[in-house]
Amino acid sequence: MSIAIVSPGKDPKPWLEALRQVDSSLDIQVYPQIEDLKKVEMALVWQHPPGFLRNFPHLKLISSLGAGVDHILSDSEIPHHLPIVRIVDEKLTWSMTNYVLMGVLNFHRQLYRYQKDKDNGIWDMSNPEISIKVGIMGVGALGGDVVDKLMYLGFEVCGYGLNDKKSLSFPYFAKHQLDDFLSDINVLVCMLPLTSETEGILNITLFQKCNPGTYLINVARGKHLIEEDLIPAFEEGYLSGAMLDVFRVEPLPRTHAYWSDSRIQLTPHIASVTNPKAAAPQIVENYKRLTNGLPLQHQINRVKEY
Amino acid sequence: MSIAIVSPGKDPKPWLEALRQVDSSLDIQVYPQIEDLKKVEMALVWQHPPGFLRNFPHLKLISSLGAGVDHILSDSEIPHHLPIVRIVDEKLTWSMTNYVLMGVLNFHRQLYRYQKDKDNGIWDMSNPEISIKVGIMGVGALGGDVVDKLMYLGFEVCGYGLNDKKSLSFPYFAKHQLDDFLSDINVLVCMLPLTSETEGILNITLFQKCNPGTYLINVARGKHLIEEDLIPAFEEGYLSGAMLDVFRVEPLPRTHAYWSDSRIQLTPHIASVTNPKAAAPQIVENYKRLTNGLPLQHQINRVKEY
Repeated sequence: MSIAIVSPGKDPKPWLEALRQVDSSLDIQVYPQIEDLKKVEMALVWQHPPGFLRNFPHLKLISSLGAGVDHILSDSEIPHHLPIVRIVDEKLTWSMTNYVLMGVLNFHRQLYRYQKDKDNGIWDMSNPEISIKVGIMGVGALGGDVVDKLMYLGFEVCGYGLNDKKSLSFPYFAKHQLDDFLSDINVLVCMLPLTSETEGILNITLFQKCNPGTYLINVARGKHLIEEDLIPAFEEGYLSGAMLDVFRVEPLPRTHAYWSDSRIQLTPHIASVTNPKAAAPQIVENYKRLTNGLPLQHQINRVKEY
Repeated sequence: MSIAIVSPGKDPKPWLEALRQVDSSLDIQVYPQIEDLKKVEMALVWQHPPGFLRNFPHLKLISSLGAGVDHILSDSEIPHHLPIVRIVDEKLTWSMTNYVLMGVLNFHRQLYRYQKDKDNGIWDMSNPEISIKVGIMGVGALGGDVVDKLMYLGFEVCGYGLNDKKSLSFPYFAKHQLDDFLSDINVLVCMLPLTSETEGILNITLFQKCNPGTYLINVARGKHLIEEDLIPAFEEGYLSGAMLDVFRVEPLPRTHAYWSDSRIQLTPHIASVTNPKAAAPQIVENYKRLTNGLPLQHQINRVKEY
């Protein structure tokens, strides 16, 4: 019995150390030095080479090394019977929420305007706040925490998602109500899972339906955004600016137009970084549950894709 | 039925606009162009000419255009039976808290570092967060709200003030414990009232006692800070940066060193500004309550004078 770490997209060392700290008796093999493929029952993956997991004949469980599983589901060679679990980390939620709150507050209190005013030696007290209503696309564990915190801070908030939801403590718009949702808000936060249905959802057709000057925050996945639609959306006035943490290609290529656009704040995919120390206990827990035939934690639905 | 704005001490225009936005059907007359005195049932006043309100034979309610009512009560010609209401502006506390949260989050999540990285085309994912503990100097109505909100967001917080306080839900340091307070934190927020005791409290002697790299936020008064001590405190490493909304001389003189120091974020005294838009709904609400014979909101006690 062993665990394999297959994470070309993440340094495996901190994961190895964190897992061994939780349970020093674990047998862990690290890609690409996996010597006994037959022993592997659980694979911890982040951007594994597609098809690679077929090398484990006795694989019983796949765990993402983060909250997202899109990088797993995009591999069509993964057998449908295999359960997939993901990391649900409070620290991850906390960091992501703080990042989104920062983005929301900087728009609301116009930090970038005052930075420009400072550069130009301008003292202008007029209109110190922009009235905002924040729309969160995706109100699961992560988006739900942002909604909760924004409401506690006294902001108007509403949610949007692909499914019908009931008994929520905030206004919620389901899939077919996208137009109503967009017309209700002027800060748009994308926290959706990346699925075949949500890929490219942030595009010029959607931006056209936004209130003029809407501010965009994307902390989900680069593929949610049609990147070439963003600057035209600024030019047309649909959007006034954006804070982006994720991109189609990361690191963002040096020639990308976003680097030099002052309407864009960009960060290098750091809104929320999974902490191996915080995540290791739940990985070990799922490994033990697998071994003992118990129900798994944080298992995703293969049909819903999250 | 109409509302009269009688506010020689405040520009009536933003109030007129804000009220009309809440209810476009309102009949509002603005001093000194009041044509139909008999129609006026509610007067919105700020430093009205004493005795003037006697011109409204059917006046039923007086509303201050601010929190204070001393400017109304000082007019001895106001009949004792007339109810007086005031503006209770949670918005003021709300704005100040949002400003402080913005400053705290931008330090914690290193917005300014990532802005610099963007300018230089650098993609650096390392160390995405600075661990922080926030110390609030002055934990009255305004500072107390910041403490509450930061705690809800999951940050470590403590307070400091000149008086002994008991039964607080957070660690509190009194006057003589300044050194202990400063050694416990790395974000210092000044929200003290300006008194002879607190003037100049933010000086190089205090900064020397801070944890190296402490971040300063001043939203209280310019005179709390010895302005010439700030840049030396950066140079010595006591402080790493500052967000300032208030200054000894406002507007900040064009020759002031703060304009060109990249370690300083500065805003033109806008952390918290009384806003007609925020107050208009409660004025309209009281007008409706008056019309419908319902109990008024924020009515003052004529005997207590508040």
